Amino acid sequence: MLANELLLKAAKGEITPKIPVWLMRQAGRVLPEYRAVRQKARDFINFVKSPELAAEVTIQPVDILNVDAAIIFSDILVIPEAMGLPYLMQEEKGPVFPDYIQSEKDIEKLHVATANDYHYVLDAIQLTKKHLQNRIPLIGFSGAPWTLFAYMTEGKGSKTFSKSKKWLYSNPEASHQLLQKITDSIIHYLKDQIKSGADIVQLFDSWAGVLNKELYDTFCIPYLKQICNAISEVPVIIFPKDGHFTLQSISSLNCNVVSLDWTIEPEIAIKTLPDKTLQGNADPCLLYADEKTIELHTFKMLKKFNSVPYIANLGHGLYPDIEKEKVKLFVEIVHSYTRSLK
Amino acid sequence: MLANELLLKAAKGEITPKIPVWLMRQAGRVLPEYRAVRQKARDFINFVKSPELAAEVTIQPVDILNVDAAIIFSDILVIPEAMGLPYLMQEEKGPVFPDYIQSEKDIEKLHVATANDYHYVLDAIQLTKKHLQNRIPLIGFSGAPWTLFAYMTEGKGSKTFSKSKKWLYSNPEASHQLLQKITDSIIHYLKDQIKSGADIVQLFDSWAGVLNKELYDTFCIPYLKQICNAISEVPVIIFPKDGHFTLQSISSLNCNVVSLDWTIEPEIAIKTLPDKTLQGNADPCLLYADEKTIELHTFKMLKKFNSVPYIANLGHGLYPDIEKEKVKLFVEIVHSYTRSLK
Repeated sequence: MLANELLLKAAKGEITPKIPVWLMRQAGRVLPEYRAVRQKARDFINFVKSPELAAEVTIQPVDILNVDAAIIFSDILVIPEAMGLPYLMQEEKGPVFPDYIQSEKDIEKLHVATANDYHYVLDAIQLTKKHLQNRIPLIGFSGAPWTLFAYMTEGKGSKTFSKSKKWLYSNPEASHQLLQKITDSIIHYLKDQIKSGADIVQLFDSWAGVLNKELYDTFCIPYLKQICNAISEVPVIIFPKDGHFTLQSISSLNCNVVSLDWTIEPEIAIKTLPDKTLQGNADPCLLYADEKTIELHTFKMLKKFNSVPYIANLGHGLYPDIEKEKVKLFVEIVHSYTRSLK
Repeated sequence: MLANELLLKAAKGEITPKIPVWLMRQAGRVLPEYRAVRQKARDFINFVKSPELAAEVTIQPVDILNVDAAIIFSDILVIPEAMGLPYLMQEEKGPVFPDYIQSEKDIEKLHVATANDYHYVLDAIQLTKKHLQNRIPLIGFSGAPWTLFAYMTEGKGSKTFSKSKKWLYSNPEASHQLLQKITDSIIHYLKDQIKSGADIVQLFDSWAGVLNKELYDTFCIPYLKQICNAISEVPVIIFPKDGHFTLQSISSLNCNVVSLDWTIEPEIAIKTLPDKTLQGNADPCLLYADEKTIELHTFKMLKKFNSVPYIANLGHGLYPDIEKEKVKLFVEIVHSYTRSLK
């Protein structure tokens, strides 16, 4: 039993009078306290691999921002590395895979990841749970199969992910093989996170938006389905960033929560996902505005989601140059709101 | 009178038995013939400013690919430069504005562009029209106000355009001032292109996708409306890339054609835009596939648009590493199709 179970109740479909709130990238550069801890690690990957440091920054926003859930500090690229594909994190450019997947042979070389490959994340979760002392739930996470596939075949971030999509169009069989290997790894990974203490898990499909409905139905939905069906212990959140065309197919998956980016109109999501808890979807850039504007838009959002099970969040991660005080304000506004339920 | 008026007829709302086709970036790196001409210019901007070279590459795809329209070779950043904000084109990184807009004073320094500021584009259009000898229509174009605003305030391409969106949220008055100055420039620019011979014009709103419905309705639609109402001489195409949430508002604008990216399901566009000609929307990555797959997906697309006025195209520009033969195949497939009209 947790002292604050608001988020888990909402995730399981309850229309809670008080609305739970957390923020993607709440454990991140927006907090000066995070930046101070970050300096203790040699580099970003070393940081991710240090359970003590990861647990420390995971808990920071709980106290500083007063959010209703912690999310384990880690990176979605843990899984590609655990499968045998190491990456580098370049400060300006983001992640780079020096030996990205270029042939079917490269796919064969990868193995399905198991606990030994990502034990440091499990250690961080256990440490965090210990420090959290059952105050609030801890969110575990993984990249979704397509998003990991995209990084592994493109070798780096991209506007078009044309190399990755070339695989889907020109070699669907090998694409399915790689997606299956990734999916098997993700299922191990999430189950192990749950065993280590994660109370709920989120799948980040950050590059959903470069596909379309047909590609998503063919190369993503079957794998998300396997994951959702394998995870029965805790609620599952899916975040198909920029994937307005994915919602109808996601509605039939065995997941509990769908996280929405800010381009999705709440009323459309409510219609398309009648059985899901919704999460999101403030524009991160709203937090550049003055206090009155933030208040106005946040209340408008809360009212739009008034009638459904709902978790307040942004439609994407916090940008590093957003002021900490504005983030606190966003959390306070959500907490100040009480739903009028008929 | 043009020998081939298929595109203009479709743009004006006719359901043509044969479907007109052209491709965004058809005058570009996908053609070896383009790359040969490109080498004659010192750099990209110098290339854009050479009417003879611009006319030459504009006409290349007409003969090589057998498309039903030419589009003047130029760049959407002609207008910011014409307003007093010079840019550099860096081979790998794309465009950079060294003195991008950072204050209201920077906005005041800009002037509304007139013919003298972009005469080289008008010269290129006149030359192209002469060489085309009325075979097919020539498409003129401009960046849409928001997309130019985005580049001018961000200083370069960006995944989030958070600097640009910060303007909208934190200084809406100054944002409107800059958008109005850009809009006035675009109206001059398109009217001058039409006087010089452009038979139809397209507005590229390449960064529509980082906004949402409310921002688009506030900061984009009013300016697009001014432009659409000012241009009565020729049909107007609007391309709101990744702007699934813009379609309803665009449906009430005085434009003729809406160009769709590949994430939009044709049946949704047909419902939302009942009075518009639709253009698009094949995934550029489809052209990485084998011939059978290209044929299958292209025919599927043509059938989905069977009942409405329609211009075949991609949902975005051609990627430079697509094979020329695949592009020719796409055009041939469209030309081989005859609509069954009841």
